Amino acid sequence: MASVDVPVALLGYGTVGSAVNRLLNEQADDIERATGHRLRVVKALVRNLEKEREWQPAGGVLTADIADVVGDPSIAVVAEVMGGVEPAGEYVLECLRRGKHVVSANKQLVARRGAELFAAATDAGVQLRFEASVCAAIPVIKVLRESLVVTNVHRVLGIVNGTTNFVLTEMEAGKSYDDALAEAQARGFAEADPTDDVSGADAAAKMAILATVAFNSRYELADVAVVGIDQIDPLAIAAAHELDMVIRLIGAARLVDGKVDVRVGPAFVDKHHPLAAVEGAFNAVMLQGDAIREITLEGPGAGGTETASAVIADMASVIGTMGTGFLQNDAAWRTLPRLTPGEHRSPFYFHLSVDDRPGVLAHVAEALAAQGVSIARILQHANGNGAAIHVVTHEAREGSLDDALVAISELDEVRKRPLPYPVVSARGVSELGWA
Amino acid sequence: MASVDVPVALLGYGTVGSAVNRLLNEQADDIERATGHRLRVVKALVRNLEKEREWQPAGGVLTADIADVVGDPSIAVVAEVMGGVEPAGEYVLECLRRGKHVVSANKQLVARRGAELFAAATDAGVQLRFEASVCAAIPVIKVLRESLVVTNVHRVLGIVNGTTNFVLTEMEAGKSYDDALAEAQARGFAEADPTDDVSGADAAAKMAILATVAFNSRYELADVAVVGIDQIDPLAIAAAHELDMVIRLIGAARLVDGKVDVRVGPAFVDKHHPLAAVEGAFNAVMLQGDAIREITLEGPGAGGTETASAVIADMASVIGTMGTGFLQNDAAWRTLPRLTPGEHRSPFYFHLSVDDRPGVLAHVAEALAAQGVSIARILQHANGNGAAIHVVTHEAREGSLDDALVAISELDEVRKRPLPYPVVSARGVSELGWA
Repeated sequence: MASVDVPVALLGYGTVGSAVNRLLNEQADDIERATGHRLRVVKALVRNLEKEREWQPAGGVLTADIADVVGDPSIAVVAEVMGGVEPAGEYVLECLRRGKHVVSANKQLVARRGAELFAAATDAGVQLRFEASVCAAIPVIKVLRESLVVTNVHRVLGIVNGTTNFVLTEMEAGKSYDDALAEAQARGFAEADPTDDVSGADAAAKMAILATVAFNSRYELADVAVVGIDQIDPLAIAAAHELDMVIRLIGAARLVDGKVDVRVGPAFVDKHHPLAAVEGAFNAVMLQGDAIREITLEGPGAGGTETASAVIADMASVIGTMGTGFLQNDAAWRTLPRLTPGEHRSPFYFHLSVDDRPGVLAHVAEALAAQGVSIARILQHANGNGAAIHVVTHEAREGSLDDALVAISELDEVRKRPLPYPVVSARGVSELGWA
Repeated sequence: MASVDVPVALLGYGTVGSAVNRLLNEQADDIERATGHRLRVVKALVRNLEKEREWQPAGGVLTADIADVVGDPSIAVVAEVMGGVEPAGEYVLECLRRGKHVVSANKQLVARRGAELFAAATDAGVQLRFEASVCAAIPVIKVLRESLVVTNVHRVLGIVNGTTNFVLTEMEAGKSYDDALAEAQARGFAEADPTDDVSGADAAAKMAILATVAFNSRYELADVAVVGIDQIDPLAIAAAHELDMVIRLIGAARLVDGKVDVRVGPAFVDKHHPLAAVEGAFNAVMLQGDAIREITLEGPGAGGTETASAVIADMASVIGTMGTGFLQNDAAWRTLPRLTPGEHRSPFYFHLSVDDRPGVLAHVAEALAAQGVSIARILQHANGNGAAIHVVTHEAREGSLDDALVAISELDEVRKRPLPYPVVSARGVSELGWA
């Protein structure tokens, strides 16, 4: 095939944008071997034309005017690497409407405005790809859409936020939450304002996108039930260790009897589960499906060149499939109902702070039994002038457990309302719940 | 896009072939959504027309005559799921020459006759895909070719044979080699004749294919240095445990200063390395590259539906990229030299059985130092009327270590020639060697 020059544009020219331009230059031969084309950045939208850039583009490439991108009919592919929901969303919409293929690294945009963006892409007959929006270079979107096309994926379990995973592994090693977070900031894993990470909002956006692609039904950020890591009790970290488990911020998207549940929250993970081995700022996503049992992808979930690598892979795939219609329609072709809150089933962990009096364990066990929740493991320790009781249940209906915990917290001996954590069992131990 | 019926043929209709036909039927809607087409098996080549089949094809589909496949111009895509090098190779060649796209699940065929097959595909302007030939449903070929297009992958480390991984994890738990192998056979992980697995030949074929795709230079089965698991000393299993490591059959393909080394053999793997967590019959492949640091893919590396899932994903990709030339040229566009034997560098483990006399450790240390090999860790135990010395070296040139071990085995106190194992260090501990 004769090489054809393809003019591309970047929206944004920060760490990711400059890495995209650098890699497009340095790896131009590899891209040409893959696609038959050479990709050349002809425009890059920035706010400040004067700022020093990591990889300085050629003269005339930088522009502060979006019209230079949307109004240039020679530009075939646009990479949105500017972040933020606005004005990125309006720019992407306009590019799609003008018939440009778009590749986005923006999870918040895809998770919040996916429906509108995909409709615009479909109307214009162009592609919208978003591999880099979830876990950077880990190619989970391509694998879900192209490799697992016949496998009916019914569960996605993931560690999809590196900052919180780093904080949790540091806490496991003995650090306090504040010290662990400060260390993450010092190493550049966490922003100065870490709210998006520690609240679970970043992970929730990624899980909304993964659930949409895995189950072919639209989930937006607002559909995801989220608990952050900022409320984790240090007692729970110690208890996990004693139970041969670790605490991880787990994103879980599950398809149960045609209904979908998507959530993010701290969970107790058995040390023999593959996700327990994910240390530091790495990410991992486990895909479970009928034909394949499970496939786990692990790697760095962030980083400038990692994200740029995914953006360019998407550009190459756009060019490699232009006009064939292959897998570039909106993934969400159906609308599945949500699982009713409380109907979610999982094994759970919780701990109780109690007065050490005869009969307390019997009262707790009765309250659980009254809701049909059975106990799998129990550990009791002296704790100051009282006792700490650690309980792991067998798989239980979440609503039933919540009802039992209300009853338990009303017992005279119980000092405060316990907070339950789902348990992710080791492979093979349980095929249900979060396991 | 209007749905178009695509006639496909299967070469072979055993476990994988019948699973392909079943999934093509059961998931026809998913495939149509992905590709715009419905795939229908119109011919399936078998040796015995009378045999009972797991998923009985429609009347007239089974044939014992290859001419019914190659001579039918309506057949656009052929899946080779019969195994064996001949006649599978001749059949695939003939299909390619007749302008049919081919998807193969046959690692021995791709690893032995890849050059010839890809040349035929290029001449005929058709695609030859082979995802299912390496680790079944783990999509390592697509990820290497499409997702990591700009990343300069320089090392592939893998556990690519489930049988041997199962045997080694059972031996770790205390079983003898023979008992572990018998257990693997009882569970259906190992064939009645397990030679291909335990000798490393199966893993070597997969590593030849992975090296070819990762480094874009042809490696055939004969190019891979192979050591099997049948010679592992039980002492080594115990020593690994004491050193906080496990023994795994590791396939390693490395690109060092423009030269390539591909090998398969038992290695000592640090327990904190992601590959150490791969238990039982699972496979995992770690890809290390410039832009992405590393990505690890883990899952079942075998199985009828798993393999069929990969075969169908390849068929969908063929249909989705027909005519675009996207990444379907032969991956091997260059010819890289081999690393000279002995030039490979790695940390190593070896153990010595010695007479317990004063000075023995000094003699061993001198012999290593004379070759520039330095010791990282050492453990000594009484062993009957002598002593066992376990040594882990820092990264060393393999040829230098071999020379030192020859000198060591000539020492009076040393009872037999030690066998070195490469060491795979934990992530971050070493960025060199097999680490």
